[in-house]
Amino acid sequence: MDRVFRVVILGASGYTGAELVRLIATHPRMEIAGLAADRKAGQRMGAVFPHLRHLELPVLTTIPGLDLAGVDLAFCALPHATSQEVIAGLPRDLRIVDLSADFRLRDPAAYARWYGHEHRALELQAEAVYGLTEFYREEIRSARLVAGTGCNAATGLYAIVPLLRAGVIDPDEIVIDLATGISGAGRGPKEEMLHAETSEGIHAYNVARHRHLAEFDQEFTRAAGRPVEVTFTPHLAPMNRGILVTAYVRGEAAAVHAALAEAYAREPFLVVLPYGESPATRHVRGSNYVHLGVVADRRPGRAMVFAALDNLVKGSSGQALQNANLMLGLPETMGLEAAPLFP
Amino acid sequence: MDRVFRVVILGASGYTGAELVRLIATHPRMEIAGLAADRKAGQRMGAVFPHLRHLELPVLTTIPGLDLAGVDLAFCALPHATSQEVIAGLPRDLRIVDLSADFRLRDPAAYARWYGHEHRALELQAEAVYGLTEFYREEIRSARLVAGTGCNAATGLYAIVPLLRAGVIDPDEIVIDLATGISGAGRGPKEEMLHAETSEGIHAYNVARHRHLAEFDQEFTRAAGRPVEVTFTPHLAPMNRGILVTAYVRGEAAAVHAALAEAYAREPFLVVLPYGESPATRHVRGSNYVHLGVVADRRPGRAMVFAALDNLVKGSSGQALQNANLMLGLPETMGLEAAPLFP
Amino acid sequence: MDRVFRVVILGASGYTGAELVRLIATHPRMEIAGLAADRKAGQRMGAVFPHLRHLELPVLTTIPGLDLAGVDLAFCALPHATSQEVIAGLPRDLRIVDLSADFRLRDPAAYARWYGHEHRALELQAEAVYGLTEFYREEIRSARLVAGTGCNAATGLYAIVPLLRAGVIDPDEIVIDLATGISGAGRGPKEEMLHAETSEGIHAYNVARHRHLAEFDQEFTRAAGRPVEVTFTPHLAPMNRGILVTAYVRGEAAAVHAALAEAYAREPFLVVLPYGESPATRHVRGSNYVHLGVVADRRPGRAMVFAALDNLVKGSSGQALQNANLMLGLPETMGLEAAPLFP
Amino acid sequence: MDRVFRVVILGASGYTGAELVRLIATHPRMEIAGLAADRKAGQRMGAVFPHLRHLELPVLTTIPGLDLAGVDLAFCALPHATSQEVIAGLPRDLRIVDLSADFRLRDPAAYARWYGHEHRALELQAEAVYGLTEFYREEIRSARLVAGTGCNAATGLYAIVPLLRAGVIDPDEIVIDLATGISGAGRGPKEEMLHAETSEGIHAYNVARHRHLAEFDQEFTRAAGRPVEVTFTPHLAPMNRGILVTAYVRGEAAAVHAALAEAYAREPFLVVLPYGESPATRHVRGSNYVHLGVVADRRPGRAMVFAALDNLVKGSSGQALQNANLMLGLPETMGLEAAPLFP
Repeated sequence: MDRVFRVVILGASGYTGAELVRLIATHPRMEIAGLAADRKAGQRMGAVFPHLRHLELPVLTTIPGLDLAGVDLAFCALPHATSQEVIAGLPRDLRIVDLSADFRLRDPAAYARWYGHEHRALELQAEAVYGLTEFYREEIRSARLVAGTGCNAATGLYAIVPLLRAGVIDPDEIVIDLATGISGAGRGPKEEMLHAETSEGIHAYNVARHRHLAEFDQEFTRAAGRPVEVTFTPHLAPMNRGILVTAYVRGEAAAVHAALAEAYAREPFLVVLPYGESPATRHVRGSNYVHLGVVADRRPGRAMVFAALDNLVKGSSGQALQNANLMLGLPETMGLEAAPLFP
Repeated sequence: MDRVFRVVILGASGYTGAELVRLIATHPRMEIAGLAADRKAGQRMGAVFPHLRHLELPVLTTIPGLDLAGVDLAFCALPHATSQEVIAGLPRDLRIVDLSADFRLRDPAAYARWYGHEHRALELQAEAVYGLTEFYREEIRSARLVAGTGCNAATGLYAIVPLLRAGVIDPDEIVIDLATGISGAGRGPKEEMLHAETSEGIHAYNVARHRHLAEFDQEFTRAAGRPVEVTFTPHLAPMNRGILVTAYVRGEAAAVHAALAEAYAREPFLVVLPYGESPATRHVRGSNYVHLGVVADRRPGRAMVFAALDNLVKGSSGQALQNANLMLGLPETMGLEAAPLFP
Repeated sequence: MDRVFRVVILGASGYTGAELVRLIATHPRMEIAGLAADRKAGQRMGAVFPHLRHLELPVLTTIPGLDLAGVDLAFCALPHATSQEVIAGLPRDLRIVDLSADFRLRDPAAYARWYGHEHRALELQAEAVYGLTEFYREEIRSARLVAGTGCNAATGLYAIVPLLRAGVIDPDEIVIDLATGISGAGRGPKEEMLHAETSEGIHAYNVARHRHLAEFDQEFTRAAGRPVEVTFTPHLAPMNRGILVTAYVRGEAAAVHAALAEAYAREPFLVVLPYGESPATRHVRGSNYVHLGVVADRRPGRAMVFAALDNLVKGSSGQALQNANLMLGLPETMGLEAAPLFP
Repeated sequence: MDRVFRVVILGASGYTGAELVRLIATHPRMEIAGLAADRKAGQRMGAVFPHLRHLELPVLTTIPGLDLAGVDLAFCALPHATSQEVIAGLPRDLRIVDLSADFRLRDPAAYARWYGHEHRALELQAEAVYGLTEFYREEIRSARLVAGTGCNAATGLYAIVPLLRAGVIDPDEIVIDLATGISGAGRGPKEEMLHAETSEGIHAYNVARHRHLAEFDQEFTRAAGRPVEVTFTPHLAPMNRGILVTAYVRGEAAAVHAALAEAYAREPFLVVLPYGESPATRHVRGSNYVHLGVVADRRPGRAMVFAALDNLVKGSSGQALQNANLMLGLPETMGLEAAPLFP
C-alpha cells in the first residue's frame, strides 16, 4: 500500500488555493490535512467555493489554528509580503511550495527594488529554489522551499530560455508581448476587475514596469550567461484563464523552432507545435500543458515565438503540484494529466 | 491486472465526441481503439481538436473503415437520423451508447411526430434503454443499446421526476424555464452561433416547440403514472457550457426539498443544496456533477426548483461514460470524479 | 434660437450617471452644468470614465459644491437612502428625476417593509410620480419629482401591465422569469461581480425576495384594480447590458398579443414583434427601445410574453432623460433615437 | 432648408452594411434610398438585423434591382473581388465609398501579389483615393471613388504614420502587435468564429502574412519617403468590437508622444492620451473615436505606441461615413459624434 502524503494549503480562499484543492482532490497519493484562510476561518470550503461542495474537506481555519503534526508539505498561496512572514514561522522541517512572489528573486537588492521593501526572511530567500520545473528539476527534488514562478513570467520563460541557452537569438532584441486572463488578478474585489469593466475589451497594463520583469531579468541573464533586459507589455484579455506570449526575436526561425523542439522533446507537459503553427490559450485551459509555436517573420532573421498556458494550472497551482510531486519523490505528472477543457 | 476495455467513438469530430475523448483519456479501464468522423477521415484528432494534441490517439477514419474486432463498446455521437442508420448496421453483439436523439422516445408515433419522419430502426428503438442513469440504472446495466438523453431534458428531469414520483407537486402546473450554453448547438457553422451573434445577450429559442418536450412528456408521464404536459421555454445564454433549469411548481417547498434530498441522498453526482439555496452553472462546469436547489416562493404552495449541470458532461458525454461503466461492469463513477473547473 | 436647458447630475461616478452624460452629450437642447460625485470630487469625468474623455465637461464636485443657480433640472443617480436625504435638501423649485429606489413606492408602509427603514422624506414621497413614461406621461409632464423605476421592474411592467388593464390574463397566475446583465449591479467592487465570478455562467439571485417585487405589486395592483401578487425569479446572465423577461401567463395568446400591440401602437420606443416571435437583448443594446413578443404555449390558454430592454438606457438613464424631456416641455424622444449597437 | 442627400448601400446584409444603416439612421442630411443584398433580396432589413426593426427602410433588393436615379452616393460593403466588378458597372457619375479591399492598393502588382489575381478594374484602381481621412482629407473631398482602409491597417497607421513623417522613429525597427474583435471576420458562418471556438481564449492568426501588411507597406513607405517593412502579428480576442495596436518602436518616447500629439491636435476624432497612459478598446466601443497613447520602455530609446478604435465604426463604416461627408460637402463629423458605449 503506497503511502499517502498529507498536505496543507495556507491561503485556501483565493483562486490558486481553490485550484490546488481541485487538483489534489483526485491525486492518488496526497490528501488535504488542513486548509487555512484567516478571513474565512470557520467556513466550509464548499461555501467559499461552491464548485468544491461535493468534496469532504477540512473546515477552513486560521493559519495558527492549523495542526501541522504529521504534515509532509505545505502549499502557501498567500499574498506576497505576508508569505515571507508566515513561512518564517513554519517548522524548519516542513517542505514548502510557495505560490507568492516572495522567494522568486535570489538577489535581495533586486527584491527590494521591485517590491519596495527589504526582504524579511533573507535566509529563506537564499535557500529557495525557483520553481520553473523543467529548468530546475534536480534542485527542486531536494529543496525544502520552492518558489512558484510568476504566471506571466513562466509563459515568457518557456518561450525564450531554451533559445538563449542554445544561442540562436540575439539577447538584446527580445520583445515579449503578452495577453493574460482575469483570474490572475485574484478574487479580491477591485473595480477594474468587474465583469462590466473587463469583458468585451482589451488593454495593456503595468506597461514597462510589471514586476515579472524581475524574473525575466534573473532567468534570462542566467540562461544567456550575460545581462539580458527585455521589453515586455502585458495585456488584460476578457477571459478567465490563459496566458498567451507572442515574443518577437532575432534569429533564424527554423533554428529557433529546432532549439525549442529539442529542449522540450522529453517534457511531459510542453508541446511544441509543428513549425509555422501558433497556439491558442483555449486549447490548454484547465490543464498543465503548455503549447509553443514558432513562425518565421516575413523579414529574414526574425521570428515570432508563441507560448500558451493556463495561469491557474501550469502558471501557478499545477506547477506547484508538479514541484510537490518531485519534492515528495512521486511521479512528476501524478494528478496533472487531465486533458484541457474545450470548449 | 484489470482488463482494459476497448471502445470506439463514431462521430468524433463534434463537441460530444471530443468530450468523450477528453474523459476517456484518463479513464483507467478504457482505451480508445478507434475514432470515426466521415468528413474528417484521415486527419489526426489533435488537428481537429488541438486541446487533445498531447494524446496518442487513432487517426480519424470513416465509419466503415473502423475495425470493430475486439471492441467492447461503441459511443455514437452522430447527428440524429444518421445515428439510427449507422447503428442498424453495427454488429449485434456490440454494446452501444448513443448520444443522438434517435432512441430516446419509446413510442414510434411520438418519434415520428417530433422528428418528422418514421423511425428507420424500429426494433432497435424497442430495445433501447433511456439513459438517465439514476432512474434506469438496472436496465442500463444489462442493456445492449442505451439512448443518451437530451441535455436540456436531463436537467429538467433531474429537477422534477422525484417530485412527481413522491407526489409532492401538481403535475398540471409545471413550468420549466431553462438557459443553456452554446456548445449544445454543436460545431457546425451556423450564423446564429457566431460569437458576434451570441455573446453579450440572451434570448429564447424554439419556444413551446423544443424537441426535448417529447422526453419531458415521456418521462414525466411515467413518473406521475398519468399524462403530464409541461410548459417549457429554453433560452440561449452567452456561455459555452452549462444548463440551468428554473422550474416553477405547485407544492410545499419544504416537502419538495425533502423529496429531492431523499431521492438523491446516495447518488454520487447529484448534490442537493441546503433548503433556500440555488445553484450556478459555473460551479459544475467541466464536471459530471449536478447541483439542485429549492426555494419557496413568497406565495404559499409554490416553489422554484433549480438544477444546474454541464451539457457536455452530465448532459451528454459524461452521462454516456457513466452508462458505459455500468454496461461494462465497472464502478459507475470511474473516470468521472474530476472536480468542476472554476473560474 | 431654442433655449438650452441646464441640468446637473448628482452621483455622476456610477454607471447610470455616466450613461446620462453619454446621452446628454448629443442632446440638442440640454447642457450639463454640473457633475457631483462626493468620493471622486476634484477629478475629471474623463479620468473616471475614459470613454467620455473627448467631451468638455465640468470637473466633478461634491454635492454641496454644486452651483444650482440657473439650473433647470437635476438627475439624481445616488444610492438609495442617500437619495432621499440629498433631495430633501435641494431647492424646492428644482425639477428632479431620481434614479434611485427612494420614491418608487407610494405607500410608506410598503417602503419600510421592503427597504428596512422608515422613509425620511415622506412629503416628497407623496409628491413623486412613478417614472414609467408610457403609463404616467401626463403626470410626469407636470411633476416636479419623478421616480425612475427599477430596471427589472420596468421590463416586467412593460410585458404585463397592458394585459391586466385589458383583462386578457388571469392576475393570479403570473410568473415573471428574468435575466439581467451585470451593469445593473453598479460599479462598486463586489466579489460576486468580478469577471471571473460572473462570466461563462448563469444563476438566480434574490429568489422570491427581490425588491422590485414591491414595484410589481404596486403597479400590477393598480392596473388590475385589485390585489395582484406575482412569482418572480431574476437571474444574472454573463453580459454587461440587457434584461429579458419571460413571463408565463394564462390567457389566449392571440388576445394577449393583440392587447400588447394595441397598447403600444403609438409608442415611439416600444416595438411589439409579430405574433409568435420573441426578442433578444442584443437587439436593443445601447438604445431606448423595448422589444416585446408573445408566443402561444402548446397548452391552450397559456402564453409566454417576452420583453427586452437595455437596463442602463430604457431601464434607467434613457428613461430618466425621456421623463426630463417631458418635464421640460421638449419632444419626448429628443436625444434618444440612436439605434441599438449590434453586434 | 438643407438638402438631404440620397445614398444607397450595396452589401447591406453584412455587419458593415448594418453599421452604415445604424449611423445614417440619425444623420440629419442623409437618407437611405436603397439597400441591396443579393442573397437576402426581398427581405426587410429588420428581419435580417432585428436591432434595426424600428426604422423605416427600403426592402432589400438585388444590386441590379437598385434604382440609382437621383442617388448621390453609394456605399459598397461587398466582399473583395466582387466589389471591383460591381463598381465597374455603376454609373460613372456616382460617388462611391468602397469598404472592401479592392481599391486600397495603388500598385497593381502589389494587388496581384497579395490578393492572388489580377485586378479587374485597373482604371478605377488608379482613380481611387485611400480613405484614411486624416491623411487624405483634401483628396477625398474631391474624389469620386474612395477606398476604405483595412480596419487593422487603420489602427496601425494612426499609431505610426505621424512618427515616420516626423522622423522620430527608426523605420526599420517597427513591430505592430494587434488584437482585434470578432465582428471583423464578418457574418458568414465559419467554424472558427463560433462562440464556442472564440470566447474565453486568445490566439494569433495569419501571422506574418495578413493582407493588411500590404497597406502598411504602401502607407509607411509613403510616409517615410523610403521603403519600410514592418513585423505584424494580429490576434483574435474574445470581444465583438475593437482593435488594439501595441507598436514597439525605436525612438525617444517623449518625442514620439509629441509627434503624435502635434499631428492630431486639431483632429476631431483622434484623442492622444497624456504621456505614459495607454488606451482600452472598450472606451471607444461603438464610436468613431480613436484613443492613442505612448509609454516609454524601461530601455532608453524604445517606446510602445498604442491605438484603440472600433473596427466597425472608425475602422470601416464610420470612416466611410466621414469620407462621404467630405465628398458631399457636409461637415466632416456629422452623424458621427455619439459617445462610446460603455460598459
